[in-house]
Parts: sequence; C-alpha cells; structure tokens
Amino acid sequence: MPAEAYTSDRVFAWEQERFWRRDWVCLGRVDRLAAPGEQAGLDVAGAGVLAVRDATGALRTFRNACRHRGHELVGRGCTVRRSTIWCAYHAWVYRLDGSLRHAPRFDPPPDADLDLLPVRSAQWRGWLFVDLSGDAPPLAEVVGDLDAVLAPYRPETLRVVATQAYDVAANWKLVVENYLECYHCPSTHPELSRVQRTDGGESFRATGAWLGGHLDLRNSAATMSLDGAGPDWTFPDLDEDAVRQVRYHLLPPGLLVTATPDHLVTHRLVPLAADRTRVECEWLFAAELVDAGTDPGYAVSFWHTTNQQDWAACESVQRGVSGGGYRPGPLAPQEDLLHTFLARLAEAYRGAGPTGTDPGPVR
Amino acid sequence: MPAEAYTSDRVFAWEQERFWRRDWVCLGRVDRLAAPGEQAGLDVAGAGVLAVRDATGALRTFRNACRHRGHELVGRGCTVRRSTIWCAYHAWVYRLDGSLRHAPRFDPPPDADLDLLPVRSAQWRGWLFVDLSGDAPPLAEVVGDLDAVLAPYRPETLRVVATQAYDVAANWKLVVENYLECYHCPSTHPELSRVQRTDGGESFRATGAWLGGHLDLRNSAATMSLDGAGPDWTFPDLDEDAVRQVRYHLLPPGLLVTATPDHLVTHRLVPLAADRTRVECEWLFAAELVDAGTDPGYAVSFWHTTNQQDWAACESVQRGVSGGGYRPGPLAPQEDLLHTFLARLAEAYRGAGPTGTDPGPVR
Amino acid sequence: MPAEAYTSDRVFAWEQERFWRRDWVCLGRVDRLAAPGEQAGLDVAGAGVLAVRDATGALRTFRNACRHRGHELVGRGCTVRRSTIWCAYHAWVYRLDGSLRHAPRFDPPPDADLDLLPVRSAQWRGWLFVDLSGDAPPLAEVVGDLDAVLAPYRPETLRVVATQAYDVAANWKLVVENYLECYHCPSTHPELSRVQRTDGGESFRATGAWLGGHLDLRNSAATMSLDGAGPDWTFPDLDEDAVRQVRYHLLPPGLLVTATPDHLVTHRLVPLAADRTRVECEWLFAAELVDAGTDPGYAVSFWHTTNQQDWAACESVQRGVSGGGYRPGPLAPQEDLLHTFLARLAEAYRGAGPTGTDPGPVR
Ligand code: FES
Ligand code: FES
Ligand code: FES
Repeated sequence: MPAEAYTSDRVFAWEQERFWRRDWVCLGRVDRLAAPGEQAGLDVAGAGVLAVRDATGALRTFRNACRHRGHELVGRGCTVRRSTIWCAYHAWVYRLDGSLRHAPRFDPPPDADLDLLPVRSAQWRGWLFVDLSGDAPPLAEVVGDLDAVLAPYRPETLRVVATQAYDVAANWKLVVENYLECYHCPSTHPELSRVQRTDGGESFRATGAWLGGHLDLRNSAATMSLDGAGPDWTFPDLDEDAVRQVRYHLLPPGLLVTATPDHLVTHRLVPLAADRTRVECEWLFAAELVDAGTDPGYAVSFWHTTNQQDWAACESVQRGVSGGGYRPGPLAPQEDLLHTFLARLAEAYRGAGPTGTDPGPVR
Repeated sequence: MPAEAYTSDRVFAWEQERFWRRDWVCLGRVDRLAAPGEQAGLDVAGAGVLAVRDATGALRTFRNACRHRGHELVGRGCTVRRSTIWCAYHAWVYRLDGSLRHAPRFDPPPDADLDLLPVRSAQWRGWLFVDLSGDAPPLAEVVGDLDAVLAPYRPETLRVVATQAYDVAANWKLVVENYLECYHCPSTHPELSRVQRTDGGESFRATGAWLGGHLDLRNSAATMSLDGAGPDWTFPDLDEDAVRQVRYHLLPPGLLVTATPDHLVTHRLVPLAADRTRVECEWLFAAELVDAGTDPGYAVSFWHTTNQQDWAACESVQRGVSGGGYRPGPLAPQEDLLHTFLARLAEAYRGAGPTGTDPGPVR
Repeated sequence: MPAEAYTSDRVFAWEQERFWRRDWVCLGRVDRLAAPGEQAGLDVAGAGVLAVRDATGALRTFRNACRHRGHELVGRGCTVRRSTIWCAYHAWVYRLDGSLRHAPRFDPPPDADLDLLPVRSAQWRGWLFVDLSGDAPPLAEVVGDLDAVLAPYRPETLRVVATQAYDVAANWKLVVENYLECYHCPSTHPELSRVQRTDGGESFRATGAWLGGHLDLRNSAATMSLDGAGPDWTFPDLDEDAVRQVRYHLLPPGLLVTATPDHLVTHRLVPLAADRTRVECEWLFAAELVDAGTDPGYAVSFWHTTNQQDWAACESVQRGVSGGGYRPGPLAPQEDLLHTFLARLAEAYRGAGPTGTDPGPVR
C-alpha cells in the first residue's frame, strides 16, 4: 500500500464507511450479557449500539439513541440490568424488544413508530457481530469454513479469563499486516521464537473472507508461554497436528483469533484515527481447565509480552511510512497471507475507493 | 435538527460566524471593571476583545491586538489597572480611549491612523455585550420586553457571589435545548423536582429575540435549594406570582438567566468546538442580602448539583446523535419553547446556512 | 503578513512543503555522531531521516524507513552504534553506506535495488543540514559570507555544553520575527537590556540567504549574563569590534546563531503546526574554556530567562493575530531586518504561494 493508505484522514474515513460500517464487526463475547434484561452500550466506528438480552433469552441490538431526542439508553462502556430499556433524560420507556412502551405526558401517545431502531446482528461461536449497514452478506458466508476450522476448540464454550486493552499509535491495517506473517518473529519476538517455530508453517486454504495459517510448537515447548510449560491438558477434539500447532486466523476487518493447544487469544481492532487503533485482547480458557484451578498467568504474561513487541513495531512502521520517502518493498515468501490481504484491499480501493487513491500494484 | 447540526465542524464554523460573530454576545458583568483604568482581556468566538473602563467612567471595547505587530494588550483572562493601555512587547502606549499616544523611537511618529480598533458594545442591566460585526440590530431591540420582565429583579444592582466554569463535551445548542424544557426534570433532577413543579408552567409571550417560561415552586419550598429552605427575603418588587415562581430566560445565542424569588443564576455559553462548550455560571444576590450576612451556599450547591446533571445529559445526547442512526423524534407538549428555538434555528440555516445543509422540517 | 499567514493550516502545509522540505534544514551538530557506526533517527518536517557515521568517517543521511515494509531503522530521537544498519522488524541488514546486505529467507535475494534511499546532506562549520527535495541550491551559496562572518568564532571547534527544548504556542515565523529586532528588548527583556545596548547597532550587508545584525555590550558588561560578568576570556580571533558586540544571525528557514565574545547560542526551529513550534536551544563553548573549568551556568541562566520572555511575547502575538481584527502596522526603523525577512517571504508567497493567499504589501 502507498503511505497514504496509512496516514490519510480521507482514506481513514472511507475505510470506516466501507469496512467498519458495512461489514460484520465483532463486538465481543455474547456471554457478556447473560441474564434477561442485561443491556450494554457498545461502539462501532463511532456509532453507539445497544445490546440487550431480552426476556426470551435472545440477544437484540439497537442504535443506542433514544427516539425522543437522542440520549444514550445505556452509557458507552456501561452495562445495566433492568426489565425495561429506560432513557434517563425524559424517562421514555421501551420494552426489551425495543418497542416504545411509554412516553410520559404525551396525551394522546405519539402516533409515529418510535420503536428503537434495530441494528442487524448475528452470533457465531460465542461472538456477537453487527452490520450497521444491513447490507453485508450473511455472516455464515463471510465466516465460511473458519467455522469448521475452529470447531475443535469449541470457542462458544470458552470463558474469558483475562482482558487487556492497548492504545496503539498505528493504522489498523499495520496491526493486521503484522499479524499475518511470522517473518518478523525471530527479530521481534525472542520469547515467542523460543517456543514456536517461525517458519515451515502453512496457510489455510480458506472459504469465506478469512485468512490464516499455522506454525508448529518447538519440540521443547508444550504451549505458548515464556518457559514453554503449560497445563497438562489440550482441547480434547484436536487432531494430532493441531495439538502441536499454533493457529492464526484473521476474520476481516478486525477479529484476530489465535488458537494454541490449550487456550485461545483474540484481538479485536477498533480504529480510532488514521494513526491510532485500540486493540482489545481477550484470553479464553476451557471451563474444565479453569475449574481445575489452572492459573492462566502463563498465557497472559506470554501474550502481553508479545503484544507489546508487536505494537512497538507497528508504531515504528507508522512513523516510517509518514512524511514521505516510503516505498513499499518486496514481500518475503513467508508473507504470502499478507500479500493476499493487501491484494484484496487494493481491489476494494479500486472498486469504489477514496477519490483519487489508486493504490497501484501491491508488490 | 439533524445530527450534523451537532457534530459537523462545517456547521460549527458557520454558526460561529453567523451567531457568535454577528449577534450580541454577553461577556459578563460590567462591574468586573469598576474603576477608571481597569482593563480586561476577553474572548468572543476566538477573537480577543479588550474592555477598558476609561477616565470618564465609560466602558470601551477594542480588538485586543496592538496596532504595531498584534501582541495582546491584556492577556486573555487577565485584568489590570493602569492609566494607559500599554503593549508589553515594544511599549507602544495608547490612551484609555484607544488613541495611540506614543510609539517609541518612531521619529517622526507614524502618520497612519493607529488607534485601537473599536468593537461595538452595549450594556444592559449590568451585563456587557459586544457585536463583533457591528451589524446586529440595536441591543434594545434584541432584548425587547425581557427588560421589563427582569426589571423587578433589578439585575443591574446585584452582586456576583459565586462563579463556576464547566467544560461540557456537547454542542452549545444541546445546552440551550436542555435549558428550554423541564420535561427532563423528573428523571434528571430529583433534587430540583422536590422543590419546583416540573409542569403546569407557562411560556412568556415575548417581544425581541428572547424565549422563556416559568414554573411554580412547590408549596413546601421557599426557594431553589436542596432542602427547599431559603433566606426569609424576596426581591421587593416582585408581584405575588413571581414570588412563588422560578423563571427561565434565554437571550440568544448564549445567555441564560434564571430568576428565583431571592437570587439569579446565569449561564454564559462559550462554544469551543462542535462537541465542546464552556459554560460559565454566576450566582447573583442582592447587596442587601449579602450585607445581612446571608450565606449563598444554599443556592450554589443546589445549582451546582443541577448543572452537573444537565451536562451529563447533554454529553450523552452528544454521543447519541453522533455516528449515524439518530432521527429526531416528536417533541412533548412541555417542549414548546424548544420547538420555537429549533424553528428559528432552522429558519436561519435555510436563509443563509452552511452549504448543503438543509435541516429539514423541525416538526 | 496577514493573520492567515500565522494561523491557517493551509498556509502551514504550504510552508512545510516549500521551505522545510525544499530548503537546507539544520539538524544539529555533526559531532553528535562521532564514531564510525553511530546512527541517529532524526526528523525533518515530519519525515524521518537516518544519519550515519560510516566506516570511512563520512556522515551519510537516508530516509529512515526500511526498504522492506517501512519500519524505522533507528527510532526518532534515538542514537545507536552498530557496524551495520539493522531493521529490528524482520532483520534486514544494510551496510553503513546504505546498501542492502541481507534480506533473510529471500532465496534468491530480491533483485530490485533495495538500498536505503539517500537524503541530500551537507555540513557547515559543525552543523549538519539536509535538503529533502534534493533541489536546493548548494549549501555554500545559501550560507554565503555568513561563513566568513562566523569564522572568528570557529563554530566547528566548539562543544555543546547545554541544551534546552521549548514548546512554543506560536507560528515559527513569529519566533523568527522576534529574533530579528531588538525594538522589543527594553520592554520585554529587562535583564538583557542591562548588559546590552538595545539600539545603535547595525545590520550586516549579507551575501547568501542569511540576515543579521549586531549590538554593543554596555560598558559595564563583559558578556551576556544576568550580572554582566563573564569568564576572563574571549574568542582569540575576534577583532576589536566583535569583542564588544553581540551578533545575531538567521540562516533561513530556521537556524538562529547568536555570537557573544565568549560563547555561541543557537536556536533550531521545528514547526509543528500553524500555532506550535519546537525550539531547540544549544549553548556552545570553546573547548579551551570548558577544559579550564568554566561553569557555563552564567550563559545558560541568562538565555533561558531571555528565551522564556521571547516565547511569552510570541504566544501573545499568536493569540492577538487570531480570530480576526488584526491589521499589520508600520515597522519601526529598528525593525529593518524584519522588513527584509517579510519582504522575501511575501515574494515566495507571491511566486508560488498557497492558492488564494496574496499577502499584499508588507508595510
Ligand atoms: S431523549 Fe430519551 S426520553 Fe428524551
Ligand atoms: S506589538 Fe505592540 S508595541 Fe509592538
Ligand atoms: S520492515 Fe525492515 S525488515 Fe521488514
């Protein structure tokens, strides 16, 4: 990509519109809202979304703006439990299905349809996704065979044992690009390189929009940890390959799922500006392992170390491509997934890209 | 108003130009500058204004920029007392009437007219107003019968007993809209609703540009305070209605005057960005009451509590209308003043609004 | 200059392009990188520059972006010493002359020319300059007879004994304009005015792009210090005039060199935004003086005091010219250098200035 793709406010605005408001965006785990009446104020590309567990146990999503004068129904980042959706400003009340129940002191009641505006959403293996536009292809189509690939890990049954948010001074695509190759591992991640091979892996042949690949654990390592030791346990359904592999999956635009033999780590990207991205990292463990008293600290400290190394690299690239004088170079054979990602991106830019931005050939 | 009216930088810039640089804007109390030679550096929509009490006791206003190379004559937010206006950079000296008295080491003196550039100003009942454009209608015409309405409170004789500035993450219009209705009072202001009725009031039939209405104190309350108690005193000239009412007045674009039977509270709005407004709140008491040793704390704590609830609501609406998905809803009968405000605003937008912004019908 | 020259983002962007990316910009002292293999990450108008002392002792400059995917080779503001240039991301290795030595796991090696992109640079009397465009006239031509004027101070032999960085909330041109006249000294700099005459000096008749002038020390003062006292030493090659003078030189766009009989002080301007400039101040002393144990504190505290007074003045002018209502006034006879600077600037604006910006006549 030319430098402009990482630095221009105009390109950023176009991408927000094209990718983050028109694709399926992951908003985290569905079990965050477990009981009927639980409600959360979430954020997608600057738009507020209200997620509600209704009385039937279904998860519903709405624009987080009251139909009266736009007050948020639940504050962003907040969660409440209540038998109705209640606007704190003038006390309009909605049912958990979003229908207006009461507008105080309107007599007669307002006759327009004033139900909360629904936002299209879908769930997949424990994650909640929304499509603000309503026009994206079905989620199952986008997910494709990633569903089968992740099935042995049974993500829908896992528990979040740790979370960590990072504010990264780099374009979101640099975070994705960094994720898609382990060519940088030997120099950037000494700890990781001690427990995982950094080459010799393979890319998945994927159906759907996702991309991914896998690399082998080193013989001396049981899992991804600073000393290579782990719990004496692996996901029961893994085949003999998976039990010795670390698998990396990108579901565009911004969900990264990393699977090890005994835990999952996910990164959710939240683009804030051309040069700023929030990254929300979650560690997922099997209930069985947690109940057995396993301390997830080995995985938390390992990936926190790796994360920080990655963000430092992305931030340096952000500075390197800023201010002119950057020319994209050739990609190494180990960067084939990255090549695929960039080629698709270039395609999207060309189709209906930001005016005047022709990203040109990728290589 | 469509969401853009609260979020767009372009609309904000247009409003700064149209309302804040072309209307009469209140800069606070005139008695801030009491003695001859007192000088204050003030700010109107990003432009510096110098207010000076001259030797004859008149209040004069100038652009706060030296005619030599533009240094401020008095720092913004600062007040000094001096028998001349003195530029600290190269020591040019002006008389208190703004005429250049001395430009050091110019021989002969510069022959151009280098007097300070005057800014049109006017006073009304103790407040100072400026019109940067010089083109606004006379202040008296804008004020209309608000003069008579406020006369019994004799605002020009009152003393500022407390001030509090707030930085609100919301568009200035949301602060105005919030002020113009008490439909939100029951849910947003439990303390206020204990001492004041929140409905059953009436709007004033106003001449001039102002808007306002009044609501009754509850029978159990003497004034606006957390426990309803107040000083055993009311403004002497109030009629029997006013003595039991709380009256709310907006003088556009940004002066809010709230009158209770025993004190006034004012809010001056200072728009900083589409999503940021400084609000300067002042409490005004009769000299008689202050001299009798009355502690204004009852009014300060009451309105400070109410203020904070209001700003939280405005900030939530700001987030709610951002990011798409907001559609203005119907206004309640209790929101008629707000309707009038929005209709006038829509009129202004339509007349010479920001290119491409048609706010559409207000309802 | 009209106010827009100091406040407009558009003018700022144009100046960054026209002056800071197309003129010779000083990056500091060459002896910062003394030994072979020393490497520094520097910044010019938002672009990263890598300066390297190569094995032959020559100083080389490159774009500070790896030819693979753009990671910085040395972090901005950092210095390392290493026998190769090494990219920390994927471990590409370059020789100190910038040629690619090794791209790991490329087999065959990439065939394109992937040497680091050179940046044109030159040295003059101990300072390093770069011209990002490669199109500026030769540095010697720009420097002109400033070389001879500064020769007696032998700047190339001096040592940096103190540095101080300032973040100034003013346009870079206001800092330059402030430097070019001492008309402001009596009112702005009481300490300076006690040790130096503030008038009666003369401007240099310069060849090249520089501007400058000199003023006499007061009889009671030995040098520029708070009490007028100094070391019992002057630069040996000064003539009898220079030994009693303070000399001010601007090498556009942003190097200020102030010469006193016993020390030099330099200011390097780094424009950050229309209303923000970083100023890096360095104090240079003769090795002889330092080796004799002279404490440079007298010069450091004197200029630090003076600097702070200057930045306060520049920041006040920035506010004064913002928000409309500023009209440039006549310049005093003592401001002739400033006049020359503004006339040249107006010329540049007129030649190929920011669209629609006609600065008009300077006086
Ligand atoms: S904005 Fe929700 S009730 Fe008014
Ligand atoms: S700017 Fe005021 S005297 Fe020069
Ligand atoms: S960016 Fe330098 S080796 Fe990849």
